[in-house]
Amino acid sequence: MSTEHPSSAPMNLPRTGISVDVHAFASDQECAAHESGTVPLWLAGLHWPGERGLSGHSDGDVVAHAAADALFSAAGCGDLGSNFGVDRPDMAGASGERILREAAQIVREAGFIPGNIAVQLIGQRPKFAPRREEAQAVLTQSAGCPVTVAATTSDHLGFTGRVEGLAAVATALVVPQA
Amino acid sequence: MSTEHPSSAPMNLPRTGISVDVHAFASDQECAAHESGTVPLWLAGLHWPGERGLSGHSDGDVVAHAAADALFSAAGCGDLGSNFGVDRPDMAGASGERILREAAQIVREAGFIPGNIAVQLIGQRPKFAPRREEAQAVLTQSAGCPVTVAATTSDHLGFTGRVEGLAAVATALVVPQA
Amino acid sequence: MSTEHPSSAPMNLPRTGISVDVHAFASDQECAAHESGTVPLWLAGLHWPGERGLSGHSDGDVVAHAAADALFSAAGCGDLGSNFGVDRPDMAGASGERILREAAQIVREAGFIPGNIAVQLIGQRPKFAPRREEAQAVLTQSAGCPVTVAATTSDHLGFTGRVEGLAAVATALVVPQA
Repeated sequence: MSTEHPSSAPMNLPRTGISVDVHAFASDQECAAHESGTVPLWLAGLHWPGERGLSGHSDGDVVAHAAADALFSAAGCGDLGSNFGVDRPDMAGASGERILREAAQIVREAGFIPGNIAVQLIGQRPKFAPRREEAQAVLTQSAGCPVTVAATTSDHLGFTGRVEGLAAVATALVVPQA
Repeated sequence: MSTEHPSSAPMNLPRTGISVDVHAFASDQECAAHESGTVPLWLAGLHWPGERGLSGHSDGDVVAHAAADALFSAAGCGDLGSNFGVDRPDMAGASGERILREAAQIVREAGFIPGNIAVQLIGQRPKFAPRREEAQAVLTQSAGCPVTVAATTSDHLGFTGRVEGLAAVATALVVPQA
Repeated sequence: MSTEHPSSAPMNLPRTGISVDVHAFASDQECAAHESGTVPLWLAGLHWPGERGLSGHSDGDVVAHAAADALFSAAGCGDLGSNFGVDRPDMAGASGERILREAAQIVREAGFIPGNIAVQLIGQRPKFAPRREEAQAVLTQSAGCPVTVAATTSDHLGFTGRVEGLAAVATALVVPQA
């Protein structure tokens, strides 16, 4: 920190972080390649039977991924790519629940206590509200701090409105260990 | 909270929340159905004469809605849909200013004190800056905590850039009551 | 603040802010007008040789701009437009690094200490990770508080996915001076 700035922040001030995560829905071709005829949807640590899943090499759980990335952002621990990329082959295909659990552990080892995480899912479907409390319980257990999850649509606008994919925004608060 | 996590957060740590809200502009058909020839625009608790309004069954005040949803997100009180949906017919068509006031009351009854709310409007129009302080005064009064409102464009990109709708992002800080 | 709200927030509670910044990539025509044949890319306070830059009258550094706007948002100091618009001709064409430095100074003069800023870049390119620490060092020096920068793609969706432009989201925490 520069000495030009005499009014430095108090010790142990919490830090805030932010992230967005986006995944495309699986194509018809990707669904046809599954024996069930569809790619399963995993979202907010839960399986959503009967809903089309997301494309890609992970399960595409935008809610859990945004939560993990917001923790990294607050603590200055890089991001999903720098933590769980090619150096961690054991994390290939890891569930969102596990990614969030590992992220919280990395942040603790870096000297920060996760305070809370708040996530909002943006998409036209699935209908999230009936399973909100279930999702919050799973992710709170993973992170070891309160995780809240809300949902909204984008009023049929943009790629989420055209049901091309799902997005999630998240913020997190962490506090330096005493 | 799991007992696996010995470094739990200090008591009374503030919590942060986040939200995005999006509404489409009213169509020519919706405007023609109004006796004034246009749907009025309500934004950030203010009426904007001469500006085309937003579509839908509420007044579509994305700034006030994002502010309310960010409070709910921080306090873990669900979201606009779960609080003001079909169970609250008295809230049908409620103004953004009233939605924010009721949201802050729900958050207080859940045991949290609203600390502050910050909102950014994203859109090509209306020109927001001349009425920023007026908007902040109305929403601060509604929420019972400082509400700041800023504005930006998306450089003519995406649905906000094509003037299909308006978006707002918001964050809020709340603190558990002692 | 209204007297209707007996549970007012404790003194010296930190405040959180949020912002999004978006800039379009320079067109082929804009690139052809440069003697180098391309518009240089400035991002997160760094020059990115060989990468196409962003359009417009500033250098379009979405990371630095989002960081500055998040500070203004948290402190209630308006936004980039209200601070560095027509009244500040000296800031025309200012670098992102300088914009962030000036924003932090304005926030301090308004009575707030910047606590931290967290930014996430959203775009398909440039590949950000190799220069993350360098970017964080430059922006932390500018702001006089810890600045973290992360990056993600939007999975080829939306205007960032179509490489029409870059976006950045940011949050900041500030604390009122004692």
